[in-house]
Amino acid sequence: MYKVKVYVTLRESILDPQGGAVKGALHSMSYTEVQDVRVGKYLELILEDDGRDPAGAVKEMCEKLLANTVIEDYRFEIEEAVAQ
Amino acid sequence: MYKVKVYVTLRESILDPQGGAVKGALHSMSYTEVQDVRVGKYLELILEDDGRDPAGAVKEMCEKLLANTVIEDYRFEIEEAVAQ
Repeated sequence: MYKVKVYVTLRESILDPQGGAVKGALHSMSYTEVQDVRVGKYLELILEDDGRDPAGAVKEMCEKLLANTVIEDYRFEIEEAVAQ
Repeated sequence: MYKVKVYVTLRESILDPQGGAVKGALHSMSYTEVQDVRVGKYLELILEDDGRDPAGAVKEMCEKLLANTVIEDYRFEIEEAVAQ
């Protein structure tokens, strides 16, 4: 069993209206020290160990489904999870 | 300047329909090794250094706005960012 943590973030050059809204809300709550907010996705996947290295499959999943690589970047970490 | 990474995840006991949909999509793409998917949020905040420890303020922001603590857990990491 593998536990995979996937982080999907908007590319630097892409406008993030959701982040802007969160920043505005924090400012209105007087957290004026907040200069910038970017909102992304965080996914946790549990994969069965089928004897192959999961990194290739996870990369494919990110490219094909989990991230829109035109506007988003992704990175992932694979941890060996204890079998249940 | 501080860079803060905030991870917001649904609590273990809370049903995650979005994760279920992603799992279903991955299965239909023949990634049948995927046993479970949980979808959360990932936020990056840039904070000005106002001389105080940012951890307290970030905890407050999470409790009040960024996470719904009834159904979500959160954790965060604070990194010292180079001033621009």
